[in-house]
Amino acid sequence: MAASIKDVAREAGVSIATVSRVLNDVDVVNEETKKRVLSAIKKLGYRPNIVARSLKTQKTRTIGIIVPDISNQFYPEIVRGAEDVANIYDYNIMLCNTDLNIEKEMEYLKVLKEKMSDGVLYMSNSLEPKILELIKQLQLPMVLVETTSKEDDIPSVTIDNEKAAYDGITYLIKKGNRNIAYIGAGEDTVNASAMRYKGYRRALQENNLELNKDRVYFSSPKAKDGYKGINEILNKTKIDSIFCTSDEIAIGAINALRDKGIKVPEDIDVMGFNNIYLSSIFYPKLTTVAQPIYDMGSVGMRMLIKLINKQELEERNYVLLHELIERDSCKK
Amino acid sequence: MAASIKDVAREAGVSIATVSRVLNDVDVVNEETKKRVLSAIKKLGYRPNIVARSLKTQKTRTIGIIVPDISNQFYPEIVRGAEDVANIYDYNIMLCNTDLNIEKEMEYLKVLKEKMSDGVLYMSNSLEPKILELIKQLQLPMVLVETTSKEDDIPSVTIDNEKAAYDGITYLIKKGNRNIAYIGAGEDTVNASAMRYKGYRRALQENNLELNKDRVYFSSPKAKDGYKGINEILNKTKIDSIFCTSDEIAIGAINALRDKGIKVPEDIDVMGFNNIYLSSIFYPKLTTVAQPIYDMGSVGMRMLIKLINKQELEERNYVLLHELIERDSCKK
Repeated sequence: MAASIKDVAREAGVSIATVSRVLNDVDVVNEETKKRVLSAIKKLGYRPNIVARSLKTQKTRTIGIIVPDISNQFYPEIVRGAEDVANIYDYNIMLCNTDLNIEKEMEYLKVLKEKMSDGVLYMSNSLEPKILELIKQLQLPMVLVETTSKEDDIPSVTIDNEKAAYDGITYLIKKGNRNIAYIGAGEDTVNASAMRYKGYRRALQENNLELNKDRVYFSSPKAKDGYKGINEILNKTKIDSIFCTSDEIAIGAINALRDKGIKVPEDIDVMGFNNIYLSSIFYPKLTTVAQPIYDMGSVGMRMLIKLINKQELEERNYVLLHELIERDSCKK
Repeated sequence: MAASIKDVAREAGVSIATVSRVLNDVDVVNEETKKRVLSAIKKLGYRPNIVARSLKTQKTRTIGIIVPDISNQFYPEIVRGAEDVANIYDYNIMLCNTDLNIEKEMEYLKVLKEKMSDGVLYMSNSLEPKILELIKQLQLPMVLVETTSKEDDIPSVTIDNEKAAYDGITYLIKKGNRNIAYIGAGEDTVNASAMRYKGYRRALQENNLELNKDRVYFSSPKAKDGYKGINEILNKTKIDSIFCTSDEIAIGAINALRDKGIKVPEDIDVMGFNNIYLSSIFYPKLTTVAQPIYDMGSVGMRMLIKLINKQELEERNYVLLHELIERDSCKK
């Protein structure tokens, strides 16, 4: 039979209240006694009733992770990074898929509060006023990943999306490209990726290249939209290269070009974004702007655990470094 | 301020104990009163303290999902299927990554029990005796997904892996192939995928084809092993086709063949397994034995919720249908 708190108290020669104080990290127990209790706990293999303790401490050591869709190529690695860090600090994660549906996001936030999650790691692209309102009301510690709130009062971890896209476009221009198509996130999305279109425009401008709207196709980050986008653009105008705001878009675009007999990179350069696993095993291997996906999850979780424990954050809006990875989908 | 149970009792004109009985589904409250309480709850937007209730009901409406690695291509879709069903029935999921590390699996099982998860959806490839022992001891309702226990007393959802591989090989033979390589799961893995090698051997035997060990390479399901495997096999012998026990292996193999100037499917047929999203956007698109990945998660979760609610399972070892999907990596 499992050891009880009574057994631990007897073994350590202290009162049940003292064992409870040690378990709940109340600092009035002297070191000597604490040691004795901890060694009794270890010896007997005692495990406290966590749920009962949760009620007392108002901590469940459970953290909610809200993602648009875990089966989307981008999020599993973020979640893995987050869970690895949670595991180190003895937290478990509750995974919630929202499909970016605001009602579902709000329902999950309420449920996470009710189940007394200690905090929430939040990925979305639409922090609408009523979501922000709810977040405030629930008073859940929260960190945004790859998501920014306009009001900037919620801690976040992102990359510099404007600069990352700017660097990608600049690379394409340096290779001699002049007619650069853009497929992906529009600037009206509240998501961090919206900044990429800004980076595209700035790079064109600084290089005295005209912004031609016929070369721009706003879409979801899915492969099928890359396929569709490139067909629409080629119906209207000529291009020499394509900047895509996700690797999946780039893959869809390359498939569309292949179906037309157009070679990548011989005829057209294609650049992806994110550096998902797939981009290194696709043919041709994708040249891409890499986000440190795993790190976004792990850094975000580390920030959140600090918040939960009321520790100081060195940086409230953490900007991780992006990196341009040269592979085979752009001319060397 | 949030409504309390007291407010609900006052609004409905009943005692707090009655509200509590309604909340806990104790069947001694008459229908009329129950209706009044429920409408008061709705009117006031009252949400009970779920953690406190959990202690009383011994139910947390939380289900643990144990996976090897959520960032592996195969699992996100299973987890998505599972969470969608959990969501319908008002359960949340706790996600645990184990990397197939037995100590980690055991630790998670214990934590899930401590946090009073109502049940566990379990994916692994090694239900070792000490794990089975622990499972019995913890008495957690459990369903295995893509995993079988030798003792067959834990409910599970799989496909018929032997038959699925047999069908794949038979397809390759019908296309005129005689020297069929095999890359992937060996028969000593306890995982359901081990049965695939059996299917390979049976198909060869029934067609009077010799089993040549030089054409067999046991490996992990990763792309890099497909790449390595095909190089090792081609150093030893000639082949006309390759059966891979995962789509990622098939992709690695195709990349290796491409690097040698060997064309797929003109020179060699390559068949994958699973039908992950990637297989439909890779070039060439993969001919593959499809598992209903999403369904495995959703059916497994539905079984588990039945178990938790002590409902009868129609089938304790659910076998879902596989399907051969013809695309472009095998000759037409």
